[in-house]
Amino acid sequence: MNAKILSIGDELLKGHILNSNSSYISEKLYSIGIPVQKITIVGDDEGNILEELNDSGIKCDITIITGGLGPTHDDITRSVIAKFVNEELVLNEKILNHIKEIFKSRRIKFPESNIIQAYIPKGAMIIWNNIGTAPGMWFEKNNKIFISLPGVPEEMKLMMNEIVIPALKEKFADDISRLFKSRYVLTAGISESELYEKLGDISELAVQCRIAFLPGPKGINIRIDASGDNEQEVISILSVTEQKIKERAGNFIYGYDDDKIESIIGNLLKEKRITLSVAESCTGGMLGSKITDVSGSSEYFLGGVISYSNDIKINILGVKKSTIDKYGAVSEQTASEMAENIRKHFNSDIGISITGIAGPEGGTDNKPVGLVYLGFSDKSKTFTREFLFGKLRERNRVRAVQMALIILRNELLLS
Amino acid sequence: MNAKILSIGDELLKGHILNSNSSYISEKLYSIGIPVQKITIVGDDEGNILEELNDSGIKCDITIITGGLGPTHDDITRSVIAKFVNEELVLNEKILNHIKEIFKSRRIKFPESNIIQAYIPKGAMIIWNNIGTAPGMWFEKNNKIFISLPGVPEEMKLMMNEIVIPALKEKFADDISRLFKSRYVLTAGISESELYEKLGDISELAVQCRIAFLPGPKGINIRIDASGDNEQEVISILSVTEQKIKERAGNFIYGYDDDKIESIIGNLLKEKRITLSVAESCTGGMLGSKITDVSGSSEYFLGGVISYSNDIKINILGVKKSTIDKYGAVSEQTASEMAENIRKHFNSDIGISITGIAGPEGGTDNKPVGLVYLGFSDKSKTFTREFLFGKLRERNRVRAVQMALIILRNELLLS
Repeated sequence: MNAKILSIGDELLKGHILNSNSSYISEKLYSIGIPVQKITIVGDDEGNILEELNDSGIKCDITIITGGLGPTHDDITRSVIAKFVNEELVLNEKILNHIKEIFKSRRIKFPESNIIQAYIPKGAMIIWNNIGTAPGMWFEKNNKIFISLPGVPEEMKLMMNEIVIPALKEKFADDISRLFKSRYVLTAGISESELYEKLGDISELAVQCRIAFLPGPKGINIRIDASGDNEQEVISILSVTEQKIKERAGNFIYGYDDDKIESIIGNLLKEKRITLSVAESCTGGMLGSKITDVSGSSEYFLGGVISYSNDIKINILGVKKSTIDKYGAVSEQTASEMAENIRKHFNSDIGISITGIAGPEGGTDNKPVGLVYLGFSDKSKTFTREFLFGKLRERNRVRAVQMALIILRNELLLS
Repeated sequence: MNAKILSIGDELLKGHILNSNSSYISEKLYSIGIPVQKITIVGDDEGNILEELNDSGIKCDITIITGGLGPTHDDITRSVIAKFVNEELVLNEKILNHIKEIFKSRRIKFPESNIIQAYIPKGAMIIWNNIGTAPGMWFEKNNKIFISLPGVPEEMKLMMNEIVIPALKEKFADDISRLFKSRYVLTAGISESELYEKLGDISELAVQCRIAFLPGPKGINIRIDASGDNEQEVISILSVTEQKIKERAGNFIYGYDDDKIESIIGNLLKEKRITLSVAESCTGGMLGSKITDVSGSSEYFLGGVISYSNDIKINILGVKKSTIDKYGAVSEQTASEMAENIRKHFNSDIGISITGIAGPEGGTDNKPVGLVYLGFSDKSKTFTREFLFGKLRERNRVRAVQMALIILRNELLLS
């Protein structure tokens, strides 16, 4: 059992828009035990679309096609499918009425050009589109299934969820013997290769499953893929591997699956009734922005000072001029005073600070681009940590914010 | 002349991450007149990768491969390529030293597992990766070109721009006959339908080119697509259409192509030697973060206060308690005091403020979710503007920041 996703559209091919549809479909198919083997994008070109359909007819049990069902001249999926199955396009009155109703409800005069959307290759089953004018189609050729859906994400998603997925599940109830599930283990503060070494022998770690490393500016995520005959079995495989990873990677793990560090610290702060304020230099507000991404963050986040210039560090935050003169604005001493002072000024339980050289300018031999000091202060202590990230401004800022949140999490877990 | 993009990675295939790399590469190739015929994603599977490489070898002049060059066991692109070209993997000392240098510069012990990244199929040319450990490769088979790049977007982009694109341009200078170019006109503060009406008859507007409307949270972008036999011809078509759009959309246009509003205001502030500070409530630092995305922003951006709680608005920013009691924290009066006070406290020429209800909680009948007040203050005046955005927290915050920057731009253009 395997599937292919074929996305059609010049917009996708030319890079003007991202193909988010195929990610969505892929995840849905995977969740019911149908692995996607290939995702392909081709433009609004008859030859290329036909080639892909023929290729699918040989290699794939199920092909999901998106796009090219609109009313304009460049929407050719309908006619190419008719050619592929060697059937003529036939006007479907029921669909035509539905399309007319949609225009009526939007108080728009029905444009004749939309009639084309009511033509369906003879023999194809119709997949009803309740919220749009382009119907989907389900047809088979040599025992292979082809499903054509519109490219508008909201329409495609509704049709996938309400019709396609249930129908595939039923049709292949006997064939889908294996279930697939993934689990993400999210780590931060450790490099990909260090993590790899910490985990040791992968073949011993990943029994009956596969492991992949996904590096990003926020840390390294580990994905565990498992399959089994039933849900219980899959969950058990995932848990066993997750447990082993936990034992080896320990505190570098901060969450699982869709967890976000800002939500994790939000929950901890709420639970412990602790308030927070921030003092940011090189991140310019990104830490505060990230913390307030979380709805309800006003329960624990009081605010902060963006002390981008030294004057503001001194006059508003109260960092000693002598500290900056002696050690520089990017130093553990400055980071320390920033964290302590913001906590005191804002009367919060915890103060967090960030000061660094985001780049690309401003680096020296002693203090290169990527050097960042993070400060933490609560009633009992103040400490700083030094990091040397890379050369890219944006990535340095994202990493600084992520590490600040990780440090905060670690302290909250200890407290 | 045609190209294919082959993206490798289970995480792409399973829908866990979006394939933004292929969009980027596609757009770049188009811009130098190389049309992409197909984008394909396959997983970390030798058979499927080989099948796609073989397919490319028959049909495509150029294949750009991304992903699978990391140091772990699931990164198999190197070895599959070696198999495809029937060559062995050879250790490249220069690359090994570069990788070691990268770890050294980050003050991390070199992990033995990274040695694998220095192995290159014999005969492949190396595409240098200055900011990461995975080198790219350029190899040819039966006169077809294959280019393998890492999947980390920042690294891939740098290598595409600095090495791959210039090299392809030079190599195919004689074969690239038809040029394609797009021009983006960026607008903000106007709805899609209003803009559409303002532009009038599209067929009269877009002569020898196509126009598309791309709505997003930051505004409506207009894309003009044109093609021609030479660069001059294409540029001339684009300019004519751009000029017409300019006449009709006027001040709603804030930039072109890759322009970012934060860079535009940065240039204006620098040029006019004006300094800026911000007071943010519902955006929690996002405005400051956006302004400091720009390298060199310390020349004009002093910093700001994130006054997420009312206490901070009163105690730190000096908003009158009576103002908040009488009009609320989300009001033009509070926005006005925030903007004026931040300017005075921070001793900047201009102060900008944002206060609003980002949602999903906190809305009332009188002050619904999406209500945002933006404040502007300079030495001669202080004013506010009211906006009612939508229901989505993240989008409301992004729109508030964008409109704050647009207001600032408009004032800077007048001053």
